[in-house]
Amino acid sequence: MAKAIQLEDTLKIVFKKESYHIHWSRTKDSFRKNIRKYVEKQRRSALITNDTIAKLYKKKLQEFFPSSDLIVLKDGERFKRLTVIEDICDKLLEKKHNRSSLLIAFGGGVIGDIVGFSAASFMRGIDFIQIPTTLLSMVDSSVGGKTGVNLSSGKNMVGSFYQPKAVLMHLPLLKTLSKKEFQCGLAEVVKSALLKDISLYKYLKDKSSEIYQQDLDLWHRLSYSSVAVKKWVVQKDEKEKSLRAILNLGHTLAHALESFYQYKTLNHGEAVSIGMSFALFLGYRLKMNTKTDFEDLFDTLGLLELPRSFANIPGRIRPDLKALLQLMKKDKKNTSDAIQFVLISKPGFYRLPQPVADAKIAKTLEEFANVDSYY
Amino acid sequence: MAKAIQLEDTLKIVFKKESYHIHWSRTKDSFRKNIRKYVEKQRRSALITNDTIAKLYKKKLQEFFPSSDLIVLKDGERFKRLTVIEDICDKLLEKKHNRSSLLIAFGGGVIGDIVGFSAASFMRGIDFIQIPTTLLSMVDSSVGGKTGVNLSSGKNMVGSFYQPKAVLMHLPLLKTLSKKEFQCGLAEVVKSALLKDISLYKYLKDKSSEIYQQDLDLWHRLSYSSVAVKKWVVQKDEKEKSLRAILNLGHTLAHALESFYQYKTLNHGEAVSIGMSFALFLGYRLKMNTKTDFEDLFDTLGLLELPRSFANIPGRIRPDLKALLQLMKKDKKNTSDAIQFVLISKPGFYRLPQPVADAKIAKTLEEFANVDSYY
Repeated sequence: MAKAIQLEDTLKIVFKKESYHIHWSRTKDSFRKNIRKYVEKQRRSALITNDTIAKLYKKKLQEFFPSSDLIVLKDGERFKRLTVIEDICDKLLEKKHNRSSLLIAFGGGVIGDIVGFSAASFMRGIDFIQIPTTLLSMVDSSVGGKTGVNLSSGKNMVGSFYQPKAVLMHLPLLKTLSKKEFQCGLAEVVKSALLKDISLYKYLKDKSSEIYQQDLDLWHRLSYSSVAVKKWVVQKDEKEKSLRAILNLGHTLAHALESFYQYKTLNHGEAVSIGMSFALFLGYRLKMNTKTDFEDLFDTLGLLELPRSFANIPGRIRPDLKALLQLMKKDKKNTSDAIQFVLISKPGFYRLPQPVADAKIAKTLEEFANVDSYY
Repeated sequence: MAKAIQLEDTLKIVFKKESYHIHWSRTKDSFRKNIRKYVEKQRRSALITNDTIAKLYKKKLQEFFPSSDLIVLKDGERFKRLTVIEDICDKLLEKKHNRSSLLIAFGGGVIGDIVGFSAASFMRGIDFIQIPTTLLSMVDSSVGGKTGVNLSSGKNMVGSFYQPKAVLMHLPLLKTLSKKEFQCGLAEVVKSALLKDISLYKYLKDKSSEIYQQDLDLWHRLSYSSVAVKKWVVQKDEKEKSLRAILNLGHTLAHALESFYQYKTLNHGEAVSIGMSFALFLGYRLKMNTKTDFEDLFDTLGLLELPRSFANIPGRIRPDLKALLQLMKKDKKNTSDAIQFVLISKPGFYRLPQPVADAKIAKTLEEFANVDSYY
């Protein structure tokens, strides 16, 4: 059994020049209390969300944010472009917002990235808060200050590091998530556990049979522990000069897979899940972690119903391994020619990214492609 | 006679988290030496300029920056939009630039603002240096880290505070400036003098008859002293929370005039010149500075051949005073309803911005509109 840990309802992220709080809530009243700490009648504010969420929560948004302007964007990653930033800034100006205004990002990662970059850029920077509505954005994008939009030729290629004034995690918002959306966040929780929280890793294994039940305690535990790992990392390295790159565990192959399937067949969480499985397989081949560590993760991902090999890709069309290698070489995290991999020593103990020779990766990818035949 | 001051060839701008040098050069060799401090063969770099400048300096750019990619933009403020940021980032990605790349802004204020914001945003921030080619960009926009682009509804409404790694001031570049372009920068030099450098103010008066001669010593003195004032201000207040707003002296009316004439009849320097004249007239009416201070500035602007009243507006179409008042109320520097004005106590001694009642401004604008009849 994993040890019981006390679940807090706040975490404070501290940077040299600024700090902010993350507040968890489970009830309407505590959510409203948290909102009132940041959104005041006396201050101009605009809540930005997408049309899917606006439809789902229209009345509640008016009830919880009565004094905020509402800006509704089209739902979808394909709208995460500079033109939407221009549209938002035009609307803010039209509604006479100024440097003292507050933006509220209400949505998943796409909304958070767009609103964060809008806040960073409108009049050279105004305040914003994050209210993530998916598990993925709760445990990943809402914390750490990465904002940005896509270019036609690459994801998140234009943006900035810009911290919110607060993040409000209202757990009941997760009730509307589909299983697929939940899995997407779950993969990042597994990543946090593998990097730096062996107790969370054990908890995930213990709870694997209950993981898709709608349980506020479980959601609280997953999001709180996962964010605690991310907090520790980004505080040490706000702008990804070194340590922060460990958050890329599983993402090197994941980005290549997503790109190979043109962001269609696999969602981000599925890609990360396969990527982590490969990272520990590579780690085993490089003698960084044991074979048991890999097998244990492989089993755990199975129990969590997350994909873990090329055979687990929905539709099961195997990717072209040479193409994957080329895509990994284009990763923006590479500073030299060699592909950088984040590996672990054992679950709960990260290693800093290190270059791995192309030939070694190619060979290991081929072995990994057949991994299902002996597991 | 103004006291002779020793002209240095570097200034260091120091912020809490970073600092950078400004280097002056008068010869090809010293310019080349300064370039080599920042642009190395081993490091990917891209020089960004506009088609007018590229035509003028094509061979020299290849000679001085042999290892840099060249990106040429269309010349003109109307291209200073988010789409050009997207184009630049697309080109950088196409040419396989990465987080270690260096951008070089070679041009006036528009190029500096565009390249600065591109550097701030590409892959969430890469290094850049400024090489200003106009007096205005040397004394104003290249120092202080303001970057950004326009919206259709407002200038510089989207951008960021992002410091360059260096600014290279190569004085012979000013040789190609027209008188009008030179005047544009000269107005900002007068502003620096009025705010905090009485010796520079005296120098401008002494040298007024020689001001449009192509004199490297004079250019060096004007740009160095003016930048020294700006350095002092921005170091104390990098992100315009308070003190930095004094750099807005003359700009409250100037922005309204520019907007009223749709950025056509008046250039920025001319508008600022009239704006400063009005600021000291308003200061005299508010008993902040003396009548003599205003008259002295009025005479000095005349000697420098800069416009100083509504009668001096090229074409002499008098602006609509009510429209000007409304435009001033829209200024993004206003945090409350009142219009904020930067005034001085006397030349060389700034005052912090203060709200001035609309009625007072309206009345003073009317008096100022007739100021030529008694001067």
